[in-house]
Amino acid sequence: MKLYDYAYSSAGYRARIALNLKGIPFERSIVNLIKDGGQQHSEAYKAINPHALIPTLVVDGTALGQSLAIIEYLDETHPMPPLLPSYPLERARVRQIAYVIACDIHPVNNQRIRKRLKEMGHSDEDIQSKWYAHWITVGFAALEQQLSQSKETGRFCHGDTPTLADICLVPQMANAYRFKVPVDRFPTLVRIDQTCRALPAFAAAAPEKQPDAA
Amino acid sequence: MKLYDYAYSSAGYRARIALNLKGIPFERSIVNLIKDGGQQHSEAYKAINPHALIPTLVVDGTALGQSLAIIEYLDETHPMPPLLPSYPLERARVRQIAYVIACDIHPVNNQRIRKRLKEMGHSDEDIQSKWYAHWITVGFAALEQQLSQSKETGRFCHGDTPTLADICLVPQMANAYRFKVPVDRFPTLVRIDQTCRALPAFAAAAPEKQPDAA
Repeated sequence: MKLYDYAYSSAGYRARIALNLKGIPFERSIVNLIKDGGQQHSEAYKAINPHALIPTLVVDGTALGQSLAIIEYLDETHPMPPLLPSYPLERARVRQIAYVIACDIHPVNNQRIRKRLKEMGHSDEDIQSKWYAHWITVGFAALEQQLSQSKETGRFCHGDTPTLADICLVPQMANAYRFKVPVDRFPTLVRIDQTCRALPAFAAAAPEKQPDAA
Repeated sequence: MKLYDYAYSSAGYRARIALNLKGIPFERSIVNLIKDGGQQHSEAYKAINPHALIPTLVVDGTALGQSLAIIEYLDETHPMPPLLPSYPLERARVRQIAYVIACDIHPVNNQRIRKRLKEMGHSDEDIQSKWYAHWITVGFAALEQQLSQSKETGRFCHGDTPTLADICLVPQMANAYRFKVPVDRFPTLVRIDQTCRALPAFAAAAPEKQPDAA
Protein backbone atom coordinates (compact mmCIF):
# COMPACT_ATOMS: atom_id res chain seq x y z
CA MET A 1 0.00 0.00 0.00
CA LYS A 2 1.09 3.55 -0.68
CA LEU A 3 0.27 6.41 1.65
CA TYR A 4 0.41 9.99 0.42
CA ASP A 5 1.38 11.69 3.62
CA TYR A 6 3.21 14.50 5.38
CA ALA A 7 5.00 14.25 8.74
CA TYR A 8 2.99 17.09 10.31
CA SER A 9 -0.46 16.18 8.96
CA SER A 10 -2.52 14.96 11.93
CA ALA A 11 -4.81 13.04 9.60
CA GLY A 12 -1.74 11.39 8.06
CA TYR A 13 -0.48 10.62 11.57
CA ARG A 14 -3.78 8.79 12.29
CA ALA A 15 -3.37 6.64 9.16
CA ARG A 16 0.26 5.84 10.08
CA ILE A 17 -0.77 4.68 13.59
CA ALA A 18 -3.53 2.45 12.18
CA LEU A 19 -1.24 0.88 9.57
CA ASN A 20 1.37 0.24 12.28
CA LEU A 21 -1.16 -1.25 14.71
CA LYS A 22 -2.33 -3.61 11.97
CA GLY A 23 1.26 -4.46 11.05
CA ILE A 24 0.68 -3.52 7.41
CA PRO A 25 3.85 -2.49 5.53
CA PHE A 26 3.40 0.71 3.53
CA GLU A 27 5.38 3.05 1.34
CA ARG A 28 5.10 6.79 1.97
CA SER A 29 4.94 9.39 -0.77
CA ILE A 30 5.54 12.87 0.68
CA VAL A 31 3.15 15.70 -0.06
CA ASN A 32 4.64 18.71 1.73
CA LEU A 33 1.80 20.97 2.90
CA ILE A 34 4.13 23.98 3.26
CA LYS A 35 6.60 23.75 0.35
CA ASP A 36 5.70 25.15 -3.10
CA GLY A 37 2.62 26.86 -1.62
CA GLY A 38 1.33 23.43 -0.57
CA GLN A 39 2.13 20.43 -2.77
CA GLN A 40 -1.39 19.08 -2.14
CA HIS A 41 -2.62 21.69 -4.65
CA SER A 42 -0.46 20.31 -7.49
CA GLU A 43 -2.34 18.93 -10.49
CA ALA A 44 -0.49 15.64 -10.01
CA TYR A 45 -1.82 15.20 -6.47
CA LYS A 46 -5.31 16.47 -7.27
CA ALA A 47 -5.53 13.81 -9.99
CA ILE A 48 -5.18 11.28 -7.16
CA ASN A 49 -7.31 13.14 -4.59
CA PRO A 50 -9.40 16.05 -5.94
CA HIS A 51 -9.99 17.29 -2.38
CA ALA A 52 -6.30 18.30 -2.09
CA LEU A 53 -6.20 16.89 1.42
CA ILE A 54 -3.80 14.48 3.13
CA PRO A 55 -3.72 11.47 3.49
CA THR A 56 -4.61 9.29 0.52
CA LEU A 57 -4.10 5.53 0.68
CA VAL A 58 -3.73 3.72 -2.63
CA VAL A 59 -4.92 0.11 -2.48
CA ASP A 60 -4.72 -1.99 -5.65
CA GLY A 61 -4.94 1.14 -7.78
CA THR A 62 -7.87 2.67 -5.89
CA ALA A 63 -7.23 5.95 -4.08
CA LEU A 64 -8.96 6.33 -0.72
CA GLY A 65 -9.11 9.72 0.95
CA GLN A 66 -10.18 10.79 4.45
CA SER A 67 -8.23 9.23 7.30
CA LEU A 68 -11.29 7.84 9.11
CA ALA A 69 -12.56 6.13 5.95
CA ILE A 70 -9.08 4.66 5.47
CA ILE A 71 -8.97 3.38 9.07
CA GLU A 72 -12.46 1.81 8.90
CA TYR A 73 -11.36 0.16 5.63
CA LEU A 74 -8.20 -1.21 7.24
CA ASP A 75 -10.22 -2.51 10.18
CA GLU A 76 -12.69 -4.27 7.87
CA THR A 77 -10.03 -5.86 5.70
CA HIS A 78 -7.42 -6.61 8.41
CA PRO A 79 -9.55 -7.42 11.47
CA MET A 80 -6.70 -8.14 13.92
CA PRO A 81 -6.09 -6.37 16.21
CA PRO A 82 -9.54 -4.72 16.10
CA LEU A 83 -9.69 -0.91 16.23
CA LEU A 84 -13.36 -0.95 17.24
CA PRO A 85 -15.06 -3.04 19.98
CA SER A 86 -17.53 -5.80 19.10
CA TYR A 87 -20.80 -4.43 20.50
CA PRO A 88 -22.69 -1.71 18.62
CA LEU A 89 -23.15 0.60 21.64
CA GLU A 90 -19.44 0.35 22.42
CA ARG A 91 -18.52 0.91 18.77
CA ALA A 92 -20.73 4.01 18.86
CA ARG A 93 -18.93 5.29 21.96
CA VAL A 94 -15.53 4.86 20.31
CA ARG A 95 -16.68 6.49 17.07
CA GLN A 96 -18.25 9.36 19.01
CA ILE A 97 -14.94 10.13 20.75
CA ALA A 98 -13.10 9.85 17.43
CA TYR A 99 -15.54 12.21 15.67
CA VAL A 100 -15.47 14.78 18.47
CA ILE A 101 -11.78 15.15 17.60
CA ALA A 102 -11.88 14.47 13.87
CA CYS A 103 -14.98 16.55 13.09
CA ASP A 104 -15.24 19.18 15.80
CA ILE A 105 -11.67 19.98 16.87
CA HIS A 106 -9.23 19.18 14.11
CA PRO A 107 -10.89 20.55 10.93
CA VAL A 108 -11.60 23.97 12.43
CA ASN A 109 -7.92 24.33 13.31
CA ASN A 110 -6.14 22.85 10.35
CA GLN A 111 -3.60 24.60 8.22
CA ARG A 112 -5.96 25.86 5.49
CA ILE A 113 -8.23 27.43 8.10
CA ARG A 114 -5.34 29.22 9.82
CA LYS A 115 -4.18 30.44 6.38
CA ARG A 116 -7.67 31.78 5.65
CA LEU A 117 -7.84 33.60 9.00
CA LYS A 118 -4.50 35.23 8.16
CA GLU A 119 -5.86 36.34 4.78
CA MET A 120 -8.81 37.86 6.68
CA GLY A 121 -6.45 40.05 8.66
CA HIS A 122 -5.68 38.12 11.85
CA SER A 123 -2.17 37.97 13.32
CA ASP A 124 -0.42 34.66 14.00
CA GLU A 125 -0.67 35.44 17.71
CA ASP A 126 -4.43 36.02 17.58
CA ILE A 127 -4.96 32.87 15.52
CA GLN A 128 -3.01 30.88 18.09
CA SER A 129 -4.65 32.26 21.22
CA LYS A 130 -8.20 33.21 20.14
CA TRP A 131 -8.79 30.41 17.66
CA TYR A 132 -6.44 27.42 17.84
CA ALA A 133 -6.17 27.21 21.63
CA HIS A 134 -9.86 28.09 22.00
CA TRP A 135 -11.22 25.16 19.97
CA ILE A 136 -8.80 22.62 21.42
CA THR A 137 -9.67 23.77 24.95
CA VAL A 138 -13.44 23.68 24.35
CA GLY A 139 -13.25 20.22 22.81
CA PHE A 140 -10.76 18.75 25.28
CA ALA A 141 -12.68 20.07 28.32
CA ALA A 142 -15.83 18.20 27.25
CA LEU A 143 -13.82 15.11 26.30
CA GLU A 144 -12.02 15.13 29.67
CA GLN A 145 -15.39 15.29 31.42
CA GLN A 146 -16.79 12.46 29.32
CA LEU A 147 -13.76 10.16 29.69
CA SER A 148 -13.06 10.84 33.37
CA GLN A 149 -16.69 10.09 34.33
CA SER A 150 -17.14 6.92 32.30
CA LYS A 151 -16.57 3.40 33.57
CA GLU A 152 -15.82 2.36 30.00
CA THR A 153 -12.63 4.41 29.95
CA GLY A 154 -9.67 2.21 30.78
CA ARG A 155 -5.97 2.46 30.09
CA PHE A 156 -7.13 3.77 26.71
CA CYS A 157 -10.16 5.86 25.69
CA HIS A 158 -12.23 2.68 25.61
CA GLY A 159 -11.07 -0.23 27.74
CA ASP A 160 -7.55 -1.57 27.78
CA THR A 161 -6.66 -1.79 24.10
CA PRO A 162 -6.14 1.04 21.62
CA THR A 163 -9.04 1.94 19.34
CA LEU A 164 -9.98 4.47 16.68
CA ALA A 165 -10.56 6.97 19.51
CA ASP A 166 -6.93 6.80 20.66
CA ILE A 167 -5.76 7.01 17.06
CA CYS A 168 -7.54 10.38 16.86
CA LEU A 169 -6.55 11.58 20.34
CA VAL A 170 -2.78 11.22 20.05
CA PRO A 171 -2.26 13.43 16.95
CA GLN A 172 -4.57 16.05 18.47
CA MET A 173 -2.58 16.04 21.71
CA ALA A 174 0.60 16.41 19.62
CA ASN A 175 -0.96 19.51 18.04
CA ALA A 176 -1.79 20.90 21.47
CA TYR A 177 1.82 20.45 22.63
CA ARG A 178 3.22 21.82 19.36
CA PHE A 179 1.10 24.98 19.59
CA LYS A 180 1.71 25.32 23.34
CA VAL A 181 -1.93 24.88 24.39
CA PRO A 182 -1.98 24.09 28.16
CA VAL A 183 -3.28 20.58 28.82
CA ASP A 184 -2.90 20.38 32.65
CA ARG A 185 -6.69 20.58 33.01
CA PHE A 186 -7.07 17.36 31.05
CA PRO A 187 -5.30 14.70 33.16
CA THR A 188 -7.22 11.76 31.65
CA LEU A 189 -6.30 12.81 28.12
CA VAL A 190 -2.66 13.34 29.14
CA ARG A 191 -2.54 9.91 30.77
CA ILE A 192 -4.07 8.09 27.79
CA ASP A 193 -1.82 9.94 25.35
CA GLN A 194 1.26 8.87 27.32
CA THR A 195 0.04 5.25 27.48
CA CYS A 196 -0.46 5.25 23.71
CA ARG A 197 2.84 6.87 22.86
CA ALA A 198 4.67 4.17 24.84
CA LEU A 199 3.47 1.61 22.25
CA PRO A 200 5.79 1.05 19.28
CA ALA A 201 2.95 1.47 16.72
CA PHE A 202 2.20 4.97 18.01
CA ALA A 203 5.83 5.90 18.63
CA ALA A 204 6.93 5.01 15.10
CA ALA A 205 4.11 7.10 13.62
CA ALA A 206 5.10 10.31 15.42
CA PRO A 207 5.77 13.33 13.17
CA GLU A 208 9.34 13.77 14.44
CA LYS A 209 10.16 10.16 13.51
CA GLN A 210 9.30 10.67 9.83
CA PRO A 211 12.14 11.30 7.35
CA ASP A 212 10.31 14.44 6.09
CA ALA A 213 10.17 16.05 9.58
CA ALA A 214 11.75 19.50 9.74
CA MET B 1 -35.64 6.13 20.89
CA LYS B 2 -35.37 9.79 21.79
CA LEU B 3 -33.50 12.28 19.62
CA TYR B 4 -32.34 15.58 21.08
CA ASP B 5 -32.58 17.70 18.00
CA TYR B 6 -33.23 21.09 16.44
CA ALA B 7 -34.95 21.73 13.10
CA TYR B 8 -32.01 23.72 11.68
CA SER B 9 -29.16 21.52 12.94
CA SER B 10 -27.67 19.81 9.87
CA ALA B 11 -26.26 17.06 12.04
CA GLY B 12 -29.75 16.56 13.52
CA TYR B 13 -31.15 16.52 9.97
CA ARG B 14 -28.75 13.66 9.11
CA ALA B 15 -29.96 11.62 12.10
CA ARG B 16 -33.61 12.26 11.17
CA ILE B 17 -33.05 11.03 7.60
CA ALA B 18 -31.30 7.87 8.83
CA LEU B 19 -34.05 7.08 11.36
CA ASN B 20 -36.69 7.61 8.65
CA LEU B 21 -34.84 5.44 6.10
CA LYS B 22 -34.67 2.66 8.68
CA GLY B 23 -38.33 3.14 9.58
CA ILE B 24 -37.49 3.57 13.27
CA PRO B 25 -40.06 5.57 15.24
CA PHE B 26 -38.50 8.27 17.44
CA GLU B 27 -39.51 11.01 19.79
CA ARG B 28 -37.87 14.43 19.38
CA SER B 29 -36.80 16.62 22.29
CA ILE B 30 -36.05 20.14 21.04
CA VAL B 31 -32.78 21.86 21.94
CA ASN B 32 -33.06 25.31 20.37
CA LEU B 33 -29.57 26.42 19.30
CA ILE B 34 -30.62 30.10 19.15
CA LYS B 35 -33.02 30.61 22.07
CA ASP B 36 -31.71 31.38 25.60
CA GLY B 37 -28.21 31.91 24.19
CA GLY B 38 -28.27 28.32 22.90
CA GLN B 39 -30.13 25.69 24.92
CA GLN B 40 -27.34 23.19 24.17
CA HIS B 41 -25.28 25.00 26.82
CA SER B 42 -27.82 24.34 29.59
CA GLU B 43 -26.62 22.19 32.49
CA ALA B 44 -29.55 19.84 31.83
CA TYR B 45 -28.44 19.17 28.25
CA LYS B 46 -24.74 18.99 29.08
CA ALA B 47 -25.54 16.30 31.64
CA ILE B 48 -26.76 14.25 28.65
CA ASN B 49 -24.08 15.36 26.19
CA PRO B 50 -21.07 17.21 27.69
CA HIS B 51 -20.03 18.34 24.21
CA ALA B 52 -23.08 20.65 24.03
CA LEU B 53 -23.65 19.60 20.43
CA ILE B 54 -26.75 18.36 18.60
CA PRO B 55 -27.94 15.62 18.05
CA THR B 56 -27.94 13.09 20.89
CA LEU B 57 -29.78 9.80 20.49
CA VAL B 58 -30.84 8.05 23.69
CA VAL B 59 -31.05 4.27 23.29
CA ASP B 60 -32.04 2.19 26.33
CA GLY B 61 -30.72 4.88 28.67
CA THR B 62 -27.41 5.34 26.83
CA ALA B 63 -26.79 8.74 25.23
CA LEU B 64 -24.99 8.66 21.88
CA GLY B 65 -23.59 11.86 20.43
CA GLN B 66 -22.16 12.66 16.99
CA SER B 67 -24.51 12.11 14.07
CA LEU B 68 -22.16 9.82 12.14
CA ALA B 69 -21.64 7.57 15.17
CA ILE B 70 -25.43 7.45 15.59
CA ILE B 71 -25.95 6.52 11.94
CA GLU B 72 -23.29 3.78 11.97
CA TYR B 73 -24.95 2.44 15.14
CA LEU B 74 -28.38 2.43 13.49
CA ASP B 75 -26.93 0.68 10.45
CA GLU B 76 -25.32 -2.01 12.60
CA THR B 77 -28.42 -2.65 14.70
CA HIS B 78 -31.08 -2.20 11.99
CA PRO B 79 -29.35 -3.55 8.87
CA MET B 80 -32.23 -3.02 6.43
CA PRO B 81 -32.13 -1.02 4.24
CA PRO B 82 -28.32 -0.77 4.41
CA LEU B 83 -26.78 2.71 4.50
CA LEU B 84 -23.36 1.40 3.46
CA PRO B 85 -22.52 -0.99 0.57
CA SER B 86 -21.25 -4.51 1.25
CA TYR B 87 -17.70 -4.35 -0.10
CA PRO B 88 -14.95 -2.64 1.92
CA LEU B 89 -13.63 -0.49 -0.95
CA GLU B 90 -17.18 0.69 -1.69
CA ARG B 91 -17.87 1.33 1.98
CA ALA B 92 -14.66 3.38 2.07
CA ARG B 93 -15.83 5.43 -0.94
CA VAL B 94 -19.17 6.19 0.74
CA ARG B 95 -17.54 7.07 4.04
CA GLN B 96 -15.00 9.27 2.27
CA ILE B 97 -17.77 11.31 0.62
CA ALA B 98 -19.63 11.54 3.93
CA TYR B 99 -16.52 12.72 5.82
CA VAL B 100 -15.61 15.30 3.18
CA ILE B 101 -18.90 16.93 4.11
CA ALA B 102 -19.11 16.04 7.79
CA CYS B 103 -15.47 16.79 8.67
CA ASP B 104 -14.22 19.29 6.11
CA ILE B 105 -17.23 21.41 5.14
CA HIS B 106 -19.84 21.39 7.89
CA PRO B 107 -17.82 21.86 11.13
CA VAL B 108 -15.89 24.86 9.82
CA ASN B 109 -19.16 26.61 9.01
CA ASN B 110 -21.38 25.71 11.90
CA GLN B 111 -23.13 28.15 14.17
CA ARG B 112 -20.52 28.26 16.94
CA ILE B 113 -17.78 29.04 14.40
CA ARG B 114 -19.79 31.88 12.84
CA LYS B 115 -20.47 33.22 16.34
CA ARG B 116 -16.73 33.15 17.13
CA LEU B 117 -15.87 34.98 13.91
CA LYS B 118 -18.38 37.66 14.86
CA GLU B 119 -16.76 37.97 18.30
CA MET B 120 -13.44 38.41 16.47
CA GLY B 121 -14.81 41.46 14.65
CA HIS B 122 -16.19 40.13 11.36
CA SER B 123 -19.49 41.38 9.91
CA ASP B 124 -22.31 38.99 9.05
CA GLU B 125 -21.74 39.85 5.39
CA ASP B 126 -18.04 38.99 5.52
CA ILE B 127 -18.74 35.76 7.38
CA GLN B 128 -21.26 34.79 4.72
CA SER B 129 -19.17 35.65 1.66
CA LYS B 130 -15.55 35.16 2.75
CA TRP B 131 -16.07 32.18 5.05
CA TYR B 132 -19.34 30.29 4.70
CA ALA B 133 -19.63 30.44 0.91
CA HIS B 134 -15.87 29.91 0.56
CA TRP B 135 -15.72 26.57 2.38
CA ILE B 136 -18.88 25.20 0.79
CA THR B 137 -17.60 26.17 -2.65
CA VAL B 138 -14.14 24.67 -2.11
CA GLY B 139 -15.61 21.41 -0.79
CA PHE B 140 -18.43 21.12 -3.32
CA ALA B 141 -16.12 21.84 -6.28
CA ALA B 142 -13.90 18.88 -5.37
CA LEU B 143 -16.92 16.70 -4.60
CA GLU B 144 -18.55 17.58 -7.94
CA GLN B 145 -15.33 16.60 -9.72
CA GLN B 146 -15.11 13.33 -7.80
CA LEU B 147 -18.75 12.33 -8.28
CA SER B 148 -19.11 13.45 -11.89
CA GLN B 149 -16.01 11.49 -12.97
CA SER B 150 -16.77 8.24 -11.14
CA LYS B 151 -18.59 5.27 -12.62
CA GLU B 152 -19.71 4.35 -9.11
CA THR B 153 -21.92 7.44 -8.89
CA GLY B 154 -25.48 6.53 -9.83
CA ARG B 155 -28.83 8.07 -9.08
CA PHE B 156 -27.31 8.66 -5.64
CA CYS B 157 -23.74 9.41 -4.52
CA HIS B 158 -22.99 5.71 -4.65
CA GLY B 159 -25.10 3.56 -6.95
CA ASP B 160 -28.87 3.62 -7.04
CA THR B 161 -29.82 3.51 -3.37
CA PRO B 162 -29.29 6.17 -0.71
CA THR B 163 -26.29 5.81 1.60
CA LEU B 164 -24.52 7.64 4.39
CA ALA B 165 -23.02 9.92 1.71
CA ASP B 166 -26.45 11.17 0.60
CA ILE B 167 -27.50 11.58 4.23
CA CYS B 168 -24.61 14.04 4.61
CA LEU B 169 -25.04 15.72 1.22
CA VAL B 170 -28.69 16.75 1.52
CA PRO B 171 -28.41 18.81 4.76
CA GLN B 172 -25.25 20.48 3.39
CA MET B 173 -27.09 21.41 0.17
CA ALA B 174 -29.92 22.80 2.32
CA ASN B 175 -27.35 25.00 4.07
CA ALA B 176 -26.02 26.19 0.72
CA TYR B 177 -29.53 27.17 -0.42
CA ARG B 178 -30.36 28.75 2.94
CA PHE B 179 -27.23 30.92 2.90
CA LYS B 180 -27.61 31.69 -0.84
CA VAL B 181 -24.39 30.00 -1.94
CA PRO B 182 -24.59 29.49 -5.75
CA VAL B 183 -24.67 25.78 -6.65
CA ASP B 184 -25.05 25.99 -10.48
CA ARG B 185 -21.45 24.81 -10.89
CA PHE B 186 -22.30 21.56 -9.12
CA PRO B 187 -24.90 19.87 -11.37
CA THR B 188 -24.21 16.36 -10.07
CA LEU B 189 -24.73 17.44 -6.47
CA VAL B 190 -27.90 19.34 -7.41
CA ARG B 191 -29.27 16.30 -9.25
CA ILE B 192 -28.54 13.86 -6.41
CA ASP B 193 -29.99 16.26 -3.83
CA GLN B 194 -33.23 16.51 -5.83
CA THR B 195 -33.42 12.74 -6.22
CA CYS B 196 -33.00 12.29 -2.47
CA ARG B 197 -35.50 14.96 -1.49
CA ALA B 198 -38.15 13.26 -3.60
CA LEU B 199 -38.01 10.28 -1.20
CA PRO B 200 -40.41 10.42 1.77
CA ALA B 201 -37.64 9.62 4.32
CA PHE B 202 -35.65 12.65 3.23
CA ALA B 203 -38.68 14.91 2.72
CA ALA B 204 -40.07 14.27 6.20
CA ALA B 205 -36.68 15.08 7.77
CA ALA B 206 -36.40 18.54 6.17
CA PRO B 207 -35.95 21.44 8.62
CA GLU B 208 -39.09 23.24 7.42
CA LYS B 209 -41.20 20.12 8.13
CA GLN B 210 -40.26 20.07 11.83
CA PRO B 211 -42.68 21.54 14.38
CA ASP B 212 -39.86 23.69 15.80
CA ALA B 213 -39.09 25.34 12.42
CA ALA B 214 -39.27 29.12 12.48
